[in-house]
Amino acid sequence: MTSNPSYAIGIDFGGTSVKLARVLPDGTIAARAVFDTTPGVESWLDAVEAALVPLRQGAEGECIGVGVGVPGFVDFDRGFIHDLTNVPGWTAVPLAEKIRARFGLPAVIENDVNAMAAGECAFGAGKGLKNAVFITLGTGVGGGILIDGKIYRGAFSMAGELGHVSIDKDGIASPMGFGGVEQYVGNAKIAAYALSRIDAGEDGAAILRQAGGRRGAVTPKAVALAAQEGDPLAKSVFDHVADCLATMIASVSYVLQPEAFIIGGGVSNAGDILFAPLNAHLERRLSAHFFPRLKILRAALGNDAGVIGCAALASHLA
Amino acid sequence: MTSNPSYAIGIDFGGTSVKLARVLPDGTIAARAVFDTTPGVESWLDAVEAALVPLRQGAEGECIGVGVGVPGFVDFDRGFIHDLTNVPGWTAVPLAEKIRARFGLPAVIENDVNAMAAGECAFGAGKGLKNAVFITLGTGVGGGILIDGKIYRGAFSMAGELGHVSIDKDGIASPMGFGGVEQYVGNAKIAAYALSRIDAGEDGAAILRQAGGRRGAVTPKAVALAAQEGDPLAKSVFDHVADCLATMIASVSYVLQPEAFIIGGGVSNAGDILFAPLNAHLERRLSAHFFPRLKILRAALGNDAGVIGCAALASHLA
Repeated sequence: MTSNPSYAIGIDFGGTSVKLARVLPDGTIAARAVFDTTPGVESWLDAVEAALVPLRQGAEGECIGVGVGVPGFVDFDRGFIHDLTNVPGWTAVPLAEKIRARFGLPAVIENDVNAMAAGECAFGAGKGLKNAVFITLGTGVGGGILIDGKIYRGAFSMAGELGHVSIDKDGIASPMGFGGVEQYVGNAKIAAYALSRIDAGEDGAAILRQAGGRRGAVTPKAVALAAQEGDPLAKSVFDHVADCLATMIASVSYVLQPEAFIIGGGVSNAGDILFAPLNAHLERRLSAHFFPRLKILRAALGNDAGVIGCAALASHLA
Repeated sequence: MTSNPSYAIGIDFGGTSVKLARVLPDGTIAARAVFDTTPGVESWLDAVEAALVPLRQGAEGECIGVGVGVPGFVDFDRGFIHDLTNVPGWTAVPLAEKIRARFGLPAVIENDVNAMAAGECAFGAGKGLKNAVFITLGTGVGGGILIDGKIYRGAFSMAGELGHVSIDKDGIASPMGFGGVEQYVGNAKIAAYALSRIDAGEDGAAILRQAGGRRGAVTPKAVALAAQEGDPLAKSVFDHVADCLATMIASVSYVLQPEAFIIGGGVSNAGDILFAPLNAHLERRLSAHFFPRLKILRAALGNDAGVIGCAALASHLA
């Protein structure tokens, strides 16, 4: 990298911790830092300032800028945070301006899932793709859309809310409508679905054993482990999850026809237990014009997608 | 227009007739021509050649180019027709090349619904919008997507197939999947739904009267006329149609967050009978972040959207 001695700082602002990384132009992480999330804006900036000292130690070249991925609604163009989910004291914060004033560095502020999408598309599973959709499976279902090599944000920076795409017009209600896919495949929903099948009389021994015998400890991971052992109920639960996801992915394919969907997040760690039935259901749900042209990829950057993506955005790479 | 004496030719290639127009830079139509659709490519080019003579008579300035909107799958970048729906003899046709060779004019070839979307967004209801979604309601449900002022075509020129967006993962089957919205709101589906409610014992007198007493003549228009008279069943049928559409529109909103949806096609002629319940269902189906920021507009160009849009595409205006 001596021919291009520059770097960007990526900051992945999570509900419990804030992860920072110094990221080189090829997407590799040269140094890391982390601190616990605290409520106020000024104390957050203090903690960033402290973390930047070891992070920049020994760095060659200049810092291009800072990218921050946050859990909430932002105005990307203005570098402005409208509101954060589950982090008090972060309403109407002009964070890019504050970072520039305090550190003398240009900054971009992005929604956390868009930041992960930017990372995967710049340096991960979607490297080289022009049109792709990133999906993260966890508590909810998040999405980030890449169009023509750039993150697509829509008219008011809120595009890509894939978790609210309806898979059943008369389905489960939420403040976002009816039948949103995350009402079926969010972490807690998968666990509740597995337990409801056990309660209805199906054999849940393998799932409960993976959960240490405690109903409250049934998670998608416990179900996936049981499925990997061949447990029929656990496999059927993941088939249901895959089918719900396939319904949403097929709908989004008909709208956007991306080159690929890139799927990450905890539930995707189930691997073939999820991806094999997902492909089978997609073939059933997509026409012969669409299915053979669509790639389903597993995210490649894991928990680093956020910091790498923030750095990519700060470097105008996505 | 003396300061910019130029024009484009728009050709709306339909299954039964081919409509041509000479379109000025402000989107107005200066002259029209039409001929019946015939099967072969060469006879089609002969008919276009004949139609161009009166069409260009008296035209000022030079012809910028020709845009053709066709009912089928195209490769926009190559000006190539893969296949047309319901028009024999049009497989693998390099039409842009043929038009250039025959008439010495640059040509663009587009899917008919994308052409209408281009027309509405360049000169119709969506004038001035950067991100919008056009929906046409007829035999099926077609869609065209405008992103950043340009028609978005996806990875293989097939994006915008809104009719196949699922509103029910276990819904009506078709070769495109399960529960595609056009399985509920296509012309014949609306008529069949109305008749099924009559067969189930509801009072269909007003609808059947509008259909001249013949079950086979029940159409969305007949139902709309009955609804305009206040018939409860007819109003309920349109409420159902509006709710199915709202489910799809809400899903697409969560994906793309366009500034507006522009709705055209025969079923949209029902006017308030459709649009009033559509807005009510959208409010129910969209979060408070999305609903107040979304406009639902009625298409403004009617049957001219196609030729005007083709001319806009030939002029690189969409």
